[in-house]
Amino acid sequence: MAGKAVRSSKPKSVYSFGGGRAAGNESMKGLLGGKGANLAEMAGHKDLRLPVPPGFTITTEVCTYYYANKKKYPPALKAEVEAALARVESLMGRKFGDPENPLLVSVRSGARRSMPGMMETVLNLGLTSKTIPGLIVQSGGNDRFVYDAYRRLITMYADVVMEKAAGIEPVEGRGVRRRLEELLNEAKEHRGVKNDTDLNAADLKELCGKYLVKVEEVLGKPFPDDPMEQLWGGIGAVFASWNGKRAVSYRRIEGIPDDWGTAVTVQTMVFGNRGDDCATGVAFTRDPGNGEKRFYGEYLVNAQGEDVVAGIRTPAPINEDSKGEQNKNLLSLEKGMPSLYQELDAIQRRLEKHYRDMQDIEFTIENDRLFMLQCRVGKRNGPAAVRMAVDMLKEKLISREEAVKRVTPSQLDELLHPILDARAEKSHAPVAKGLPAGPGGAAGMIVFTADEAVQQAAGGNKVVLVREETNPEDVEGMRAAQAILTARGGMTSHAALVARGWGKCCIVGCGELEIDPSAGTVKARGKTLRGGDWISLNGTKGYVYEGQLPMIKASEDNPILKEFLKICDRVRRLKVRTNADTPEDARKARAFGAEGIGLFRTEHMFYGEGSEEPLFKLRRVIVSKNEEERRAALVDLYVHIKEDIKATLEAMEGLPVTIRLLDPPLHEFVPQGEQQKEELAKAVGITVEELEKRASSLHEVNPMMGHRGVRLGITYPEITEAQVRAIFDAAAELIQSGKKVHPEIMIPVVCNEKELEHQFRLVKKVYGEVLAATGLKKIPHLTGTMIEVPRAAIAAGKIAGIAEFFSFGTNDLTQMGFGFSRDDIGSFLADYLEQNILPSDPFQTIDQEGVGELIRIAIGRGRRQRPGLKVGICGEHGGDPESVKFCHRAGMDYVSCSPYRVPIARHAAALAVAEEKPKAARGKSGKKKAK
Amino acid sequence: MAGKAVRSSKPKSVYSFGGGRAAGNESMKGLLGGKGANLAEMAGHKDLRLPVPPGFTITTEVCTYYYANKKKYPPALKAEVEAALARVESLMGRKFGDPENPLLVSVRSGARRSMPGMMETVLNLGLTSKTIPGLIVQSGGNDRFVYDAYRRLITMYADVVMEKAAGIEPVEGRGVRRRLEELLNEAKEHRGVKNDTDLNAADLKELCGKYLVKVEEVLGKPFPDDPMEQLWGGIGAVFASWNGKRAVSYRRIEGIPDDWGTAVTVQTMVFGNRGDDCATGVAFTRDPGNGEKRFYGEYLVNAQGEDVVAGIRTPAPINEDSKGEQNKNLLSLEKGMPSLYQELDAIQRRLEKHYRDMQDIEFTIENDRLFMLQCRVGKRNGPAAVRMAVDMLKEKLISREEAVKRVTPSQLDELLHPILDARAEKSHAPVAKGLPAGPGGAAGMIVFTADEAVQQAAGGNKVVLVREETNPEDVEGMRAAQAILTARGGMTSHAALVARGWGKCCIVGCGELEIDPSAGTVKARGKTLRGGDWISLNGTKGYVYEGQLPMIKASEDNPILKEFLKICDRVRRLKVRTNADTPEDARKARAFGAEGIGLFRTEHMFYGEGSEEPLFKLRRVIVSKNEEERRAALVDLYVHIKEDIKATLEAMEGLPVTIRLLDPPLHEFVPQGEQQKEELAKAVGITVEELEKRASSLHEVNPMMGHRGVRLGITYPEITEAQVRAIFDAAAELIQSGKKVHPEIMIPVVCNEKELEHQFRLVKKVYGEVLAATGLKKIPHLTGTMIEVPRAAIAAGKIAGIAEFFSFGTNDLTQMGFGFSRDDIGSFLADYLEQNILPSDPFQTIDQEGVGELIRIAIGRGRRQRPGLKVGICGEHGGDPESVKFCHRAGMDYVSCSPYRVPIARHAAALAVAEEKPKAARGKSGKKKAK
Repeated sequence: MAGKAVRSSKPKSVYSFGGGRAAGNESMKGLLGGKGANLAEMAGHKDLRLPVPPGFTITTEVCTYYYANKKKYPPALKAEVEAALARVESLMGRKFGDPENPLLVSVRSGARRSMPGMMETVLNLGLTSKTIPGLIVQSGGNDRFVYDAYRRLITMYADVVMEKAAGIEPVEGRGVRRRLEELLNEAKEHRGVKNDTDLNAADLKELCGKYLVKVEEVLGKPFPDDPMEQLWGGIGAVFASWNGKRAVSYRRIEGIPDDWGTAVTVQTMVFGNRGDDCATGVAFTRDPGNGEKRFYGEYLVNAQGEDVVAGIRTPAPINEDSKGEQNKNLLSLEKGMPSLYQELDAIQRRLEKHYRDMQDIEFTIENDRLFMLQCRVGKRNGPAAVRMAVDMLKEKLISREEAVKRVTPSQLDELLHPILDARAEKSHAPVAKGLPAGPGGAAGMIVFTADEAVQQAAGGNKVVLVREETNPEDVEGMRAAQAILTARGGMTSHAALVARGWGKCCIVGCGELEIDPSAGTVKARGKTLRGGDWISLNGTKGYVYEGQLPMIKASEDNPILKEFLKICDRVRRLKVRTNADTPEDARKARAFGAEGIGLFRTEHMFYGEGSEEPLFKLRRVIVSKNEEERRAALVDLYVHIKEDIKATLEAMEGLPVTIRLLDPPLHEFVPQGEQQKEELAKAVGITVEELEKRASSLHEVNPMMGHRGVRLGITYPEITEAQVRAIFDAAAELIQSGKKVHPEIMIPVVCNEKELEHQFRLVKKVYGEVLAATGLKKIPHLTGTMIEVPRAAIAAGKIAGIAEFFSFGTNDLTQMGFGFSRDDIGSFLADYLEQNILPSDPFQTIDQEGVGELIRIAIGRGRRQRPGLKVGICGEHGGDPESVKFCHRAGMDYVSCSPYRVPIARHAAALAVAEEKPKAARGKSGKKKAK
Repeated sequence: MAGKAVRSSKPKSVYSFGGGRAAGNESMKGLLGGKGANLAEMAGHKDLRLPVPPGFTITTEVCTYYYANKKKYPPALKAEVEAALARVESLMGRKFGDPENPLLVSVRSGARRSMPGMMETVLNLGLTSKTIPGLIVQSGGNDRFVYDAYRRLITMYADVVMEKAAGIEPVEGRGVRRRLEELLNEAKEHRGVKNDTDLNAADLKELCGKYLVKVEEVLGKPFPDDPMEQLWGGIGAVFASWNGKRAVSYRRIEGIPDDWGTAVTVQTMVFGNRGDDCATGVAFTRDPGNGEKRFYGEYLVNAQGEDVVAGIRTPAPINEDSKGEQNKNLLSLEKGMPSLYQELDAIQRRLEKHYRDMQDIEFTIENDRLFMLQCRVGKRNGPAAVRMAVDMLKEKLISREEAVKRVTPSQLDELLHPILDARAEKSHAPVAKGLPAGPGGAAGMIVFTADEAVQQAAGGNKVVLVREETNPEDVEGMRAAQAILTARGGMTSHAALVARGWGKCCIVGCGELEIDPSAGTVKARGKTLRGGDWISLNGTKGYVYEGQLPMIKASEDNPILKEFLKICDRVRRLKVRTNADTPEDARKARAFGAEGIGLFRTEHMFYGEGSEEPLFKLRRVIVSKNEEERRAALVDLYVHIKEDIKATLEAMEGLPVTIRLLDPPLHEFVPQGEQQKEELAKAVGITVEELEKRASSLHEVNPMMGHRGVRLGITYPEITEAQVRAIFDAAAELIQSGKKVHPEIMIPVVCNEKELEHQFRLVKKVYGEVLAATGLKKIPHLTGTMIEVPRAAIAAGKIAGIAEFFSFGTNDLTQMGFGFSRDDIGSFLADYLEQNILPSDPFQTIDQEGVGELIRIAIGRGRRQRPGLKVGICGEHGGDPESVKFCHRAGMDYVSCSPYRVPIARHAAALAVAEEKPKAARGKSGKKKAK
């Protein structure tokens, strides 16, 4: 690795690279941006020293300075840029603005983390009326190439620098880029050709002239003919684009801080479009779609890099391995330029070994010479991330903890995504096929604009965004949609990259679609679909179907997933249980790796409408007038409770099962329908009026804080007794049939230790009675409490004097901690999130600062009273990765979540361990030395 | 003071006193009970050495042992009792059970705190068939006295020891005492006399014979004729009475712990009923009814002490000063036995000086010889307590802190009690007059039994309990009643003592009443009132009126009260503000001593029904569809808000006024009536259906945790702006007219600092605008927050980074801290209190352990961030004395409470200081020394 950069007393603003040396290195992403740091690493690291076009990077600190100082640069910047430019000129033997042998450069953005397509780039800077002739000579008289380059420069510069960065609002929404494209289309029409490449040098020269006139006409200023003016304009435009609407919107979604800023890299232009011995391409060191270990990429002959990424021409495969349905007939680089391919292949191997991760690289071939333009850690979808993690661990490229960290929770989530039902797919013919850019299945109604996607999704509708191609303006609509379908673009197109990042189902390059947004139709294979029609997508294969196909849940039998989760299990310390209310749930969760049940809700067994069903029997309990009636009704209900608990204990044999006693307020169970009321009244032997009177006496103003949980158990001890008896009887029967069971009785909504003392007396009494009746010596069990009332967290010391375990009910703890009724938060939550008053929905991710602090206080006080107190969580946060990590750090023993979230929790628990390691390492080496 | 008792290695169970010495002293109330400790102090302290009949006290530890060991005594007790008894015999020159010269003793209970009449006493123990003749000789042949004593012993012993302590349930509710009384009545009827005293020796002797037969008949066992059996029976009965129903019920009401236990004092009997040179009396060193400094008491010639307390005969005044309407014609002790009176008067002076507090003393004169039976701090009513505190401070008897402590909050509360409207009293003639035993006025419907009082009060009715006399079984009914009225008994009767302790209106000894509970009537002065009829009582004068007379609130102009509160003000450090929503409230509270407003609720100004009234205008705001409509409606409402705030700021000129921004959920203001809805819909220009739709969209499942407080201010910033503008405009107008104002803007329901940042930006903006518009340089103000959401308490550090003050909203903090909806707690609170799961209603008195801990955490974190942060409380707890003391200890700057509670809070704040002093002293001297 490159040694640490030694800072001069005055901070440097410009870092040069190229010619086998570099002032920066990979570790300096914060300062040089990802692109700049990697170019420096590629150019300068002793193991690499790759053929990188020389250039220099202006630091992110300049960006910060720029925004802090009314968009002015640090005074020293000009001299530093000029010195660095001189170094490039010297390395290239060309001069910027030199009429004889001109140097052309690009300016590109580069943030600490990649923000694909979100900021601006300007290429071919340095082309002026004075340097054009020199470049024609330099390119061996290729005047067509030179005027094409000039045309591109004018277009980009006018759009990015002169219009967008200057903040000029396009008239009638038609920006200067579009107006110039209109001139291009006119020229093609005039010449009767279809492709840009069919225009000859004279056509392009004439077009450039028209462009210059049009630019001045539209923007009121001439296109600058001074190379340094061009360069500074480009640099300024990149900085300006950091705060452009698209970039800001992307940062918000991705959680990138606004104050990071972007670096600007100025680099010698090399051209993939000087002729047929030129090419440009994008590649990955492994397949980003499935993780297979094969060099994978796309390229275009005689093209600039932007042509590949923009998806305007369908690119060719880089090698035979990369061939797919869409490009199998195109000539691969491997076959077309074999020696250059070998050179590239060797480089990609070195890069992956050096970076110990899959790399996304950009290269250009200029007149049979290979240049590396960029290299960065490659984005990948979930299946690919999991496979690469497992493979690289096997290859000993990375450690077990590193493997865990190589997969994000949302990537793992992709593997757990629903897919289209394969049998249903068999009986349907696809209406179109495209590139499988985002795996999984999805179905939704067709929408043609991002805005409509946002609106429909807000209304609760599932939509598929169908577009010719997507661009950064569409990001919010893409997010709102179930899936994205584009007619153009490749696997590295905007749509594909964005969708993959989110683990969203996506098909791109589906060229057979004829999309007509103005008519609201899309045609394919003779069929016409309209906006609002349902379509279904298989994003793993790239197939599009008419109608809403049935979906099946994520497979539990993915062997690589299982391997990965076993790696996680070896790393994590936190146990993962499940919230399950039925034996079926319990079995499913066990298959997902659950190590017990953290929450079995007795009330969820009260279903059915008939008079022999548990719900009816519970209702009889509820409308009882006195203890005697209630006890009689409970005898009847007990049978159901016991059978349900017994089946669940059996399904979880050998593992702990936490059974929560009745929690909700009784009025939740009161019948609403007339017939049900009559039936119940008849059974109880009272009039419907009397029934309604008894039921309405249960009404509460704030039911969430009403007569529920342990409060029911205290006013109606017989209800606690019946449940506890059902638990012990069920356990006893299983023990007698030779099974091992571990019931854990959990008392909800507790606020002090006296409530627990009261309930524990009942538990003890019933336990004694069951032992006496069965002759058993003991029934292994624990009795504990939920901590879900803020006061209980505060008084956890005394409570732990009684409770044998704590389980945090973070849903209620969040409700009461914030005073947010989950049912009513809708009226203000959106405003809170939008205005950054809350970083996220606290019901999704634990509020670590407030609710989390209550949890830390409770665990601390609880364990001081009862060392080794078993502590878990059974709120819905137990399946949220950030919350699981918090639980690990807070010192819990387990989390409990819904069966489908168990794999996510297993991974997140491992992540928590993996992420704490470097900290410990820093802690060891990072101690300040005494002078 | 007596030196500290040195404990021997084996704890002593018996402490002797008498003959100028005592093993115990006053400081040992925990061990010897109040009575035992005071007897020891009176008998043994060098400054006193009073004529106390010798005896000994069995400690409360024996009681604890007794209950912990299946009602067995410690093995060593027997020997200790016998040794102590021998000491008494030696001092008295008599022997227990000696046929020639027998010693008689009493056994009495004595808890750490007085529990008048709640436990048992047995007198005259030692009288047996063998000792009767000896006692007759000893008493100079007074056989009437001896058989009367024997009759009393049999009655008490059979009742207390043989029936109650043995747990025998009376047949048909007629206990042995009542059956014996029937024999007594028969005897009186047979002899044609009215009073017990009219029976002669032969009558009584015959009666004793019948008593012995009846006892054995009723209880199945003979009355014991062995003196030691009698003694141990008596001791056991006292211990048993500690857990008697009455005692337990009293302890629950008074908050006396069950594990204190009672001591038993065995003491030589001296007799006030041996003849006309004998007497017995009860006296107070100052008047317990008004606090005047005069020796005050009652006595009866030729009677036992129980005759005075039981109120069966109307006692005579002890001196001329003690004469009142009821006893002005009776002979005072001062006149009747002047030298003995002088001796008693000298003793009472020494006692008050020694104890530095008003003493309640019991004495007996046996054949012209004075014995002191008991002395304890005298109970007193509120006015007396306040006056004594003020006087004793002036007399330099006590310190300022001591004066503060001499008045309990409930005593102070009595002075703030309502009284009957004096003008109404003038126009009504009393239907009866009695002794003014409990001051203040009250009115209620007549009930004749304690049970009925409890039932009626539970149903929300106001009742007056009307009884011949009360006894300890009536305690709960007495508490439930507005007032107590008895036909018999004196100022020291049961009814009077209990009522005074509670500060309840009470009239006793109202002999002209003819009460017939079975007929449900009470007759007086020719009128017949029935159960359910209203009567009104002036407990300060002792007048009873027919009907419901108007009442007026407690006088604010009581000069002694004012003096006392000034003493409190010099002691306390906590400021006292008031919760006031109107200028009138503000003025009233200022008169009560409020030092500012701690809570002005903007929403309370939204009243009225007309379309020009504030409520209507607020409703227009609420049903607005968008910001534009809302802003328009707010312009209209602003005028009202400003005027209201201005008037309040003016009323509190020079003092801080905390104005809370709109707090309740908007749906609370939605009109319910059809006409109101129509009117509003018309004004807004929408249909009633549309109005209802908009209103119902505001409905919430848990409104307490819904869209309210700052959440409204964030979703509708224009509502915050309008209120803030009203505050600043009002303040500016007052400043411009030369007034000093200190508005404090308070943001409610805050849960994190970002909410505050958002609102503070609005406050700052409006502030700038108002300054600009008025030309003022500044408007003194603070902006702060309520801490009422648990999360805010936890995150108080960050919040204090923004907020300039904290005000704890303990109502909501209790709701959310416990998860107790105040509206719904009724369904389980009673069970919680009854089963001791909660020590008290947490909405009455702050839950110091849980909610209080949140407050301590918040203050700690807040002040760490912002040293000197101003902290107060504005929940209803601000007027609860225990909670005020907590606020002091927690380090708050002020409490705020309703205007009428301001004096209570001033006193409680002083109490908090006064009570912390001894602690500090102990802290200094009580450090453990290193060995």
